[in-house]
Amino acid sequence: MVLGVRLYSALYPSWGPVCLLLRSFASCSGNPASCCTMPQLGLLHGRAWAVLFGQLRRPPGAVCIGAVHSHSQVAEAALATQLKPHQEKSNFIIKTPKGTRDLSPQQMVVREKIIDMVVSCFKRHGAKGLDTPAFELKEMLTEKYGEDSGLIYDLKDQGGELLSLRYDLTVPFARYLAMNKVKKMKRYHVGNVWRRESPTIVQGRYREFCQCDFDIAGQFDPMIPDAECLKIMCEILSGLQLGDFLIKVNDRRILDGIFAVCGVPESKFHAICSSVDKLDKMSWKDVRHEMVAKKGLAAEMADRIGDYVQCHGGVSLVEQMFQDPRLSQNKQALEGLGDLKLLFEYLTLFGIAEKISFDLSLARGLDYYTGVIYEAVLLHTPAHAEEEPLNVGSVAAGGRYDGLVGMFDPKGHKVPCVGLSIGVERIFSIVEQRMKTFGENIRTTETQVFVATPQKNFLQERLKLIAELWDAGIKAELMYKNNPKLLTQLHYCENMGIPLVVIIGEQELKEGVIKLRSVASREEVAITRENLVAEIQKRLSES
Amino acid sequence: MVLGVRLYSALYPSWGPVCLLLRSFASCSGNPASCCTMPQLGLLHGRAWAVLFGQLRRPPGAVCIGAVHSHSQVAEAALATQLKPHQEKSNFIIKTPKGTRDLSPQQMVVREKIIDMVVSCFKRHGAKGLDTPAFELKEMLTEKYGEDSGLIYDLKDQGGELLSLRYDLTVPFARYLAMNKVKKMKRYHVGNVWRRESPTIVQGRYREFCQCDFDIAGQFDPMIPDAECLKIMCEILSGLQLGDFLIKVNDRRILDGIFAVCGVPESKFHAICSSVDKLDKMSWKDVRHEMVAKKGLAAEMADRIGDYVQCHGGVSLVEQMFQDPRLSQNKQALEGLGDLKLLFEYLTLFGIAEKISFDLSLARGLDYYTGVIYEAVLLHTPAHAEEEPLNVGSVAAGGRYDGLVGMFDPKGHKVPCVGLSIGVERIFSIVEQRMKTFGENIRTTETQVFVATPQKNFLQERLKLIAELWDAGIKAELMYKNNPKLLTQLHYCENMGIPLVVIIGEQELKEGVIKLRSVASREEVAITRENLVAEIQKRLSES
Repeated sequence: MVLGVRLYSALYPSWGPVCLLLRSFASCSGNPASCCTMPQLGLLHGRAWAVLFGQLRRPPGAVCIGAVHSHSQVAEAALATQLKPHQEKSNFIIKTPKGTRDLSPQQMVVREKIIDMVVSCFKRHGAKGLDTPAFELKEMLTEKYGEDSGLIYDLKDQGGELLSLRYDLTVPFARYLAMNKVKKMKRYHVGNVWRRESPTIVQGRYREFCQCDFDIAGQFDPMIPDAECLKIMCEILSGLQLGDFLIKVNDRRILDGIFAVCGVPESKFHAICSSVDKLDKMSWKDVRHEMVAKKGLAAEMADRIGDYVQCHGGVSLVEQMFQDPRLSQNKQALEGLGDLKLLFEYLTLFGIAEKISFDLSLARGLDYYTGVIYEAVLLHTPAHAEEEPLNVGSVAAGGRYDGLVGMFDPKGHKVPCVGLSIGVERIFSIVEQRMKTFGENIRTTETQVFVATPQKNFLQERLKLIAELWDAGIKAELMYKNNPKLLTQLHYCENMGIPLVVIIGEQELKEGVIKLRSVASREEVAITRENLVAEIQKRLSES
Repeated sequence: MVLGVRLYSALYPSWGPVCLLLRSFASCSGNPASCCTMPQLGLLHGRAWAVLFGQLRRPPGAVCIGAVHSHSQVAEAALATQLKPHQEKSNFIIKTPKGTRDLSPQQMVVREKIIDMVVSCFKRHGAKGLDTPAFELKEMLTEKYGEDSGLIYDLKDQGGELLSLRYDLTVPFARYLAMNKVKKMKRYHVGNVWRRESPTIVQGRYREFCQCDFDIAGQFDPMIPDAECLKIMCEILSGLQLGDFLIKVNDRRILDGIFAVCGVPESKFHAICSSVDKLDKMSWKDVRHEMVAKKGLAAEMADRIGDYVQCHGGVSLVEQMFQDPRLSQNKQALEGLGDLKLLFEYLTLFGIAEKISFDLSLARGLDYYTGVIYEAVLLHTPAHAEEEPLNVGSVAAGGRYDGLVGMFDPKGHKVPCVGLSIGVERIFSIVEQRMKTFGENIRTTETQVFVATPQKNFLQERLKLIAELWDAGIKAELMYKNNPKLLTQLHYCENMGIPLVVIIGEQELKEGVIKLRSVASREEVAITRENLVAEIQKRLSES
């Protein structure tokens, strides 16, 4: 704990050079605080710190206001000196934070279409809307996400409560249920969540991304809500026309049963489970190696697990597992298998059984699942040869979490829940690429009428006219110029896909008419002022 | 800097009692880190710290992993010891963070209606959608908000970039324009922003709240976009039927001109401006006292300012100010007055001049405004005597900010902008209260048809039937029970406002029909299975 510098009054003039030093130090060692823990820092950057320390003699009359003991505090101190941006504009990089992006108007149109489609499906299934804050008390999120907890964004302690940005929409939902003592609810929630993942943007993964969740909370007869969740996933993935897809299904209790009958000690269930979860990206050989070499599992146990987790199939595999001499001895596994059998029965009635695969390798990362789990993957190959295949991983997933609400309830009262989450961002990548490939053009505005003039000094008339259109609910634009050229105005309409133009000039004003022009056909007709709105509305309703 | 404790390995068992001590210390002194700065802490809580320090003998074999020097670090250390929630559930308060709230399904319906109305107005005026991340690089937000900068939420430094939650949607828009070198754009943006204000929730103010922004960027002929912004505010406030309203208008250049001709030194412009800004909450007498006693302004200067800033009126006041012997000597003021005169001309053409008041006391807090500024206030008194008047302050505001984009551009290139922001939260409070007063009932789901049965063992038939309805796009629900009671099912429909019920039982199955029941009239008709979907769609299109 000897590494560090003392901070003298930040207002002292000699802070200028110190600050530059801090800056160059920060940049030479990469991102200000990306390095790691303090002890490592001390070893790695001992020399740099010493230099820094040497520079900082206490200026006469300055007051020591604190000691900097961590790398991040130094970065902050550098900021606190308030370098004016215009003083060093050349160092100033304008960007969005790592792993985030702006959505352009074109992207917004596509995004809105996808979300509208998803939400209308949720509403078709009787869900109510719900919204929760972007951040939660930090303690609400602890012990919910297992190994992923390190990816939670914390807010800085600025006084008051310790807060974290929400990591998913499921935990806030469970917190809402417990807080309001709600025992039964079918809700949807569309909102952003934040995860400090290493972004691989090419795969459609971001640190800020939108989730569309549907969940059913309450004590019901088994597997009916679970089956509806799978039906919803099918409706959405079919509706979005993303190509062929498959939904893998498994049950946490079956996985635990497999580990138990293979002799895995219970303390290793989580670690082995997270190895199994990698089977969609790694070969069994590599996963087996991880289990044995890294996680210390006996080789014969790993082999036994391998016999199970490499199986996948339909309802017949459920039957086969029921007959398995070892697994059929395990109570948990039997419960899981019984539920899966019932689930397949309902899926058949819903007409979607052929989209579902019982896949024993499916494990799902999050800690809170307790029963059925599922994950939808796209199977499609690009329609065009020149289109690059896009690895988007799973596009929707979910499962049953019967214990999560109880974690929030002071008396531990449980509310069983099952739900699903649609990964809009990944779907968005696919749709965006498809549109690029097909060169689709999207209108980013909905303007129906443009108010134009061929003459100078007609701004006043244009303003009066457009106010009439707006007040009639017609979507209208004009050029913010006193004297625009007619050609410029007509070009704008063509570029923006605006279907109608109303033209007012001296001639029209004299005759008490307005010219109505169709942009596509270039036909023009004169219409009396009082009939204009009605005529426009008629034209728009016809198109 | 002597206050503090050393942190020994967090895993050491003796951490239990230490942690409890830290907790009780935190709770007895209010929120963990709300108290203040470190030196104050040392004085206030010296005794408590000493006790703490005394408790902490280095346990044999434990490693010192750091020193805690601030109150907030202590709170964090307490968290880091990972007390399992179920170990002390009784201390565990389930809540949303201070100043935030969940939106219930009923609130969501109201919220969505308001936002839909606002967005449709923005689209009527030709705006494109845009979205930006919830957080920005911290440096993007510095020096944009004046005195309010302290209210920005920073994210914790977890390695990598230093980030802050967005404080409004205007600065991210300016950053977007500069980053993408966009010189012209009309965009809307609906999104949450975060401000660490002392929440007075009764007035509809939150720390997380939704803003609906419309902005026009680009070099245009003067006051045309500005007038459109005011037109949009009028359309929205009229459309939402919030009662009578008024939009105050002023110009930053006129204010600066007033200060100059009253003899205020330029260094005091900002301070005096923020005093003027308080005239909507304080009397002139109190504001004058603040100027003289707190901000050191000469009494006669304050009196001269008072003569101006207590004026408000229509376009005639603009003319009057043009004739003012002192103000008419100030170049800036003349520019502002000239623009306001033009603005009023356009507002008259738009038919909204009577809604606008030239109010010399309007100042607007944010630093970035450079020209016209405006703020809409509701004038309505409650319709019913028993309804409490709700002080919601301004419900919409905005102005011209010609310098903000240039602050982001490496070469300082300017893009003039003007825009407005609708305070949905405040409008929401009003609409919500109105609905409570009138006892309005809102449907929180859109379900059109309920699939019911009067008999046991009809789950399979119900599942097949409801899948047909879903696949036809009909919004349908059923009870997640094997054998629900018919009465329960019908009651649910009445409670939820579901208009139609389809009933299937043995009789119907035998005859190949389904009973279709209207919940309102309780009339039932038998319909053949193949005609069911068509009949339902016909009924729904008629209602």
